Amino acid sequence: MPAYFLQETLKYADICCALNKYLMHSWLSIPSESDFSLQNLPYGVFHLGDGRLRAGMAIGDHIIDLAAASELGLFGKKRFFYKIFTQSTLNDFIALGKPVTNRVRKKVQDWLRLEQRPDNAAQILVNRAEAQMVMPIRVPNYTDFYSSIEHATNVGKMFRPDNPLLPNWRWLPVGYHGRASSIVVSGTPIRRPHGQILPPGGAPDTPVFAASRQLDFELEMAFIIGKESPLGTPITVEQADEYIFGLVIFNDWSARDIQRWEYVPLGPFLGKNFGSSISPWIVPLEALKPHRVKSPKQQPEPLPYLATKGLQNYDIHLEVSLLHGDQSTVISRSNTRYLYWSMAQQLAHHTVNGCNVQVGDMMASGTISGPTPGSFGSLLELSWGGKHEIALSDGTVRKFLEDGDTLRMRAWAGAADRKVGFGQVEGTVLPAHDTAG
Amino acid sequence: MPAYFLQETLKYADICCALNKYLMHSWLSIPSESDFSLQNLPYGVFHLGDGRLRAGMAIGDHIIDLAAASELGLFGKKRFFYKIFTQSTLNDFIALGKPVTNRVRKKVQDWLRLEQRPDNAAQILVNRAEAQMVMPIRVPNYTDFYSSIEHATNVGKMFRPDNPLLPNWRWLPVGYHGRASSIVVSGTPIRRPHGQILPPGGAPDTPVFAASRQLDFELEMAFIIGKESPLGTPITVEQADEYIFGLVIFNDWSARDIQRWEYVPLGPFLGKNFGSSISPWIVPLEALKPHRVKSPKQQPEPLPYLATKGLQNYDIHLEVSLLHGDQSTVISRSNTRYLYWSMAQQLAHHTVNGCNVQVGDMMASGTISGPTPGSFGSLLELSWGGKHEIALSDGTVRKFLEDGDTLRMRAWAGAADRKVGFGQVEGTVLPAHDTAG
Repeated sequence: MPAYFLQETLKYADICCALNKYLMHSWLSIPSESDFSLQNLPYGVFHLGDGRLRAGMAIGDHIIDLAAASELGLFGKKRFFYKIFTQSTLNDFIALGKPVTNRVRKKVQDWLRLEQRPDNAAQILVNRAEAQMVMPIRVPNYTDFYSSIEHATNVGKMFRPDNPLLPNWRWLPVGYHGRASSIVVSGTPIRRPHGQILPPGGAPDTPVFAASRQLDFELEMAFIIGKESPLGTPITVEQADEYIFGLVIFNDWSARDIQRWEYVPLGPFLGKNFGSSISPWIVPLEALKPHRVKSPKQQPEPLPYLATKGLQNYDIHLEVSLLHGDQSTVISRSNTRYLYWSMAQQLAHHTVNGCNVQVGDMMASGTISGPTPGSFGSLLELSWGGKHEIALSDGTVRKFLEDGDTLRMRAWAGAADRKVGFGQVEGTVLPAHDTAG
Repeated sequence: MPAYFLQETLKYADICCALNKYLMHSWLSIPSESDFSLQNLPYGVFHLGDGRLRAGMAIGDHIIDLAAASELGLFGKKRFFYKIFTQSTLNDFIALGKPVTNRVRKKVQDWLRLEQRPDNAAQILVNRAEAQMVMPIRVPNYTDFYSSIEHATNVGKMFRPDNPLLPNWRWLPVGYHGRASSIVVSGTPIRRPHGQILPPGGAPDTPVFAASRQLDFELEMAFIIGKESPLGTPITVEQADEYIFGLVIFNDWSARDIQRWEYVPLGPFLGKNFGSSISPWIVPLEALKPHRVKSPKQQPEPLPYLATKGLQNYDIHLEVSLLHGDQSTVISRSNTRYLYWSMAQQLAHHTVNGCNVQVGDMMASGTISGPTPGSFGSLLELSWGGKHEIALSDGTVRKFLEDGDTLRMRAWAGAADRKVGFGQVEGTVLPAHDTAG
């Protein structure tokens, strides 16, 4: 069959798809609809109940034990990689740079695509259900953006009805520095914080010290910096992909009553820094590239240093559930594609003044609300500042989170055998400490 | 002479003084008025041009090479301390805790008080003039407070004339998270940042991308956390001293024009995170205890979790000079005793919601302005928002910093042979990069 015939008959996309299907078949059984397909291979740090931390890659119902794989010589330089993969965080691995991390990714993909189950499979594979995930990253710096126009407008309407979207919002990706020390991995319970609060019906501008009554979540995604930049040197929008290692789901727990009293003029502080939770698996940017989509139209046109070309957003489905007792209710469905400001724009803006970035830095999107009420990314918006009640499947209602509530967020791109999922981030609200104040 | 007679004749204070004088005499010649008396012994990290980093303590014109001292067995456990003192930062040393760090301090004091110059002096002492100081700490988290009522009122008057001091200010030590990655050691030049700025006479709410024209300093002191706290557990005002290892001078460089456009509603971001400078020597809290003084009266009375007893402020003299060419002009003289909120209150507030702290965390005071114009801690206040010119000794004037200007801050408590000084923090303004924008 002449080559030109083949070219005529099969469309390019078909070839890619067939090729990919062939390349992406594994001897390992990977459940369809698993978050962790061969296209994904996210990184995490785990142990098996013994506290011996090691790096891993999630695949279906398993984990590739990267420490074991390096001991068996899968990546060459046995001692070097063994040392890297038995550290308590992925920072040193990520700092090796994308040429190295992508080669490791490729080696694992090749190993999973061998003709038949290799002899060393039992030594390298771990049942995911048996693993305990820990914080995968030491976070040197954490920044939170405010990049959803729907969220900024909703919050603006509640706090400043006359002036919902502030004049700077469409010109720059508004952001602020958050607290890195209190970022925790999924599963860590969150203690209801105390703080200064203006009680309803109290004397004007006279706070009391009390446990927060308006505990909330914020549905966000965060990207993790994979490459250091020197102080004084901006990162351009075109360079951003080089600097972004991967993404996690991010829950920016918020105490609205504490935040409301404290945030003018220097921004949120104790209303946020009592805890933020991330999903344990870092999905590499490479795995998300097939899921790039157009961004919303930006008006006014961004200044030149923020101007981008091509597909900058990602089609990542987001789902928030509130678990109470043995019942679970989906309370929001959103998507990262709604974000007005892209990650490249966030990073370019963050560094345009010469601010440097470090490996492991986390930059969160801000709450990702969509255009409809069912897609709002916080209880503040879902209950419209506590005006409406949200009905749960067990018949109870919520305006804000109650003690014992578990909040779960999930995120995924694609579907079926090619899903690139993030797993989940969840946290349960513990009652406030009994404090005299 | 019977003992009771001695007790009658000499007052208690005299005894202490005489005793102290005896105890605090050294075989080493320490220039009078040196910042680095026997009472001080601040910690830093240095090298001698060879890049081999080691920890040191400043004493007069010398440095105690703590790596050399540990090799010679001064602290026992030779290998342990040698390893600790040859690291690139002091974090691991500080994390040993005050019982250990104070014992090291005591050993060095004892060694300096020997009857005569010990044989190992030449191996342990380094000429301070030959040493290059580096960043002494890895800073996991950086928080900036806003604790001077004079500064907050001044800035408030300029930005919000009707409402200078916001309602929350007297109730809580307002603070926000800053950028840890861009904290640099004294001597590091600071590049004038670019950013979005509203040009004078431009279209309303329409920024341009340009180099900052309102580059400023902020005169601050910062304390460094010496003990980790777990997430969820507040640190009380009474516990604060356990958690504060020591202090440095802190210059929070600020680009006022960038800050003004960006800071509502989430606080300062690019107007600050292009660089902050610290003095290289960390003065331990123990050295400052004799210089405790009363705090300003707080009205309204602080909520119980912020209530303190005893002397909470420090009498630390502050001086800011602007150097231009070969001329130096003192442009401000202030004092930490003016601070409305004490360090203990800052730390108790920061953690009252359960926010955790880590060893090396830096918490800066905010600009320390005094009550008179000559004691204002920023050019924003000294030039009253650019309305007045500040005359320099070379006949030029300033409203904000110009390229090539060097800003120097000094700080010290006490005087003569018992001075507890911080040395200085300085930085020179480099012209903005040539950028298309």
